[in-house]
Amino acid sequence: MSRFSFNQATAKYWPLADVVAGCASAGVTNVGLWREPVAEYGLTRSAKLVREAGLSVTSLCRGGFFGADNWLDDNRAALDEAAELGAPALVLVCGGLFGRTLDQARDRVARGLEALAPHALDVGVTLAVEPMHPMFCADRCVVSTLGDALDLALQFPAETVGVVVDTYHVWWDPQLAAQIERARGRIVSVQLCDWVIPLPADTLLGRGHLGDGVIDFPPVVAGVLSAGYTGFVEIEIFNQDVWDAPADQTAATIRQRFASLLA
Amino acid sequence: MSRFSFNQATAKYWPLADVVAGCASAGVTNVGLWREPVAEYGLTRSAKLVREAGLSVTSLCRGGFFGADNWLDDNRAALDEAAELGAPALVLVCGGLFGRTLDQARDRVARGLEALAPHALDVGVTLAVEPMHPMFCADRCVVSTLGDALDLALQFPAETVGVVVDTYHVWWDPQLAAQIERARGRIVSVQLCDWVIPLPADTLLGRGHLGDGVIDFPPVVAGVLSAGYTGFVEIEIFNQDVWDAPADQTAATIRQRFASLLA
Repeated sequence: MSRFSFNQATAKYWPLADVVAGCASAGVTNVGLWREPVAEYGLTRSAKLVREAGLSVTSLCRGGFFGADNWLDDNRAALDEAAELGAPALVLVCGGLFGRTLDQARDRVARGLEALAPHALDVGVTLAVEPMHPMFCADRCVVSTLGDALDLALQFPAETVGVVVDTYHVWWDPQLAAQIERARGRIVSVQLCDWVIPLPADTLLGRGHLGDGVIDFPPVVAGVLSAGYTGFVEIEIFNQDVWDAPADQTAATIRQRFASLLA
Repeated sequence: MSRFSFNQATAKYWPLADVVAGCASAGVTNVGLWREPVAEYGLTRSAKLVREAGLSVTSLCRGGFFGADNWLDDNRAALDEAAELGAPALVLVCGGLFGRTLDQARDRVARGLEALAPHALDVGVTLAVEPMHPMFCADRCVVSTLGDALDLALQFPAETVGVVVDTYHVWWDPQLAAQIERARGRIVSVQLCDWVIPLPADTLLGRGHLGDGVIDFPPVVAGVLSAGYTGFVEIEIFNQDVWDAPADQTAATIRQRFASLLA
C-alpha cells in the first residue's frame, strides 16, 4: 500500500478540498490531481492545501490535445501548474486526427513534444505521453500503444519525456510485456483500473474497480517494477456507478482490491 | 470495380435470394456470404442460386469462437459449407477471453487452428484469421492486430491459414503497413468500411460508408495489392442507418464511394 495513490478522477464529483480531506482521514498520502478542480479551488491555494495535508501529488492530468487552438500556451501553463503542485509528471492526452491522416497527426504530436520540451526541463516536470486505447485513436489520442509512446519519448532526454502505463488502454496489447521492459527509465506514471464488459455507451466510462473486469494486474505491476519504476501506482476509475456510490464505499473497495490483488 | 465484392452483412435484413437478385441486377459478380442467411435459404439451394446467378462467393462468415461449446464440430461444418458455396476462405472470429488470461486465450486460438487445419486442407478452404479491433479483445476476439494474426497464420501452410484485412479493425495500427507487407501470400480476404465518430453505443455498428469516417483507404488497398493480393475487396458495413436505408440508395452509395475513393 505504500505505492498507492488516489487519482481524483475516481471521485469526479468531489471538490478538491474533499479529496484532500478524504485522503488525509483515510491515511492515503499520495494523490493524482486534475487541472479543472485545481483551477476551481485556485492553484496557489491548492498547492498549499495538499502540502499542509502532507500529500504528495503523483501526477497532474492533463495536457496534450496538440491539434487544439492555443495548445502551446495551454500546455506551458499546465507544466507550470504541475511544478507548483509538486507533481513530477504532466499526463498528456495527445489528441486525435483533427482532420489529418494518422501519420500527419502522429507527426504533430512529435512536433508538440519538441516545442514543449525546453519548458518541461526548465520547470522540472516530465511530459508523460499516455498511449490510449485504439478505440480513441480517431478523436482523442493517436498514440495507441506503449510502443508508439516509447518511439516518441525516446527521441527526448528521460527527464523531459516519459510514458504512462494505464491498464485500461494497454492491457490487450500482445507486445505489452516487451514494451514495459523497453520502457525502463521512461515510465513516469502508472494508473490502474479494470476493463469491464460489456462496454457502456460512453466507452470512456468502461473502467471498473480492480477485479470487476478482465485485466490480469499482477503481471503488469510486476513488469513495471521489474523495469525499475520507483513511483506510485494510481487508481483512476471513470465509471458512472463508482462516481454515484458513497465515498466511503468507493474508498474501501479501492483499498481492499488494491491490497488483495497486488499483495 | 472488377475487384469489388458485396458482403451481405451490409444488407442485414435482405434474405439471400434478394441479395443475389440485387447483385445480379446491379452487375455485381462477387458476394461475401454469412452462414445464417445461407442456412435459412438452405445450403444446397443457396449454392445453386449463387452459381446460377453467375456470382462468385468471395468469403463465408464466420467460424471461430474457439471457447464456445461445440466449436470443433461447428467449425468443421462451416468449412464444409464454405466448400459447397465455392468460397475460398472461412472468416474466423477467434473468440474472447471466456474466463482465461490473454495468453491462455491466445493459445487456445492456436490450438483451435491446429485442430481445424487438416479439415481445411481436405475441403480446400483457407481458415481466415481476422484480427479484430482491440475494443473487442475481451469478449469477441483476442487476436487484436494483423501482426498477431500473422504470428498465428505463419505456423501453418499458406493454403490452410491466412489472414483478413478489415479496415475497421486495423486502421489505427502504426504497424499496419509493415504487417501488410509481411502478410504477402497470406491475405485471403480484404474488407472495407469506414470508422465513423462518435462511436455508437454498440461499437460493432460504428462502421460507415467509405468516406463517411476517418480511414485513409488508398494506402491500405495499395498495400494489399503491392503485397500480391489477387482476390476481391468486400464492402462490409454494419450500421443501423445503412441497414434502414433503401436498398437502391445503399447500393448506389457503395459503388460510387468505391469507385471515387479507389479509382
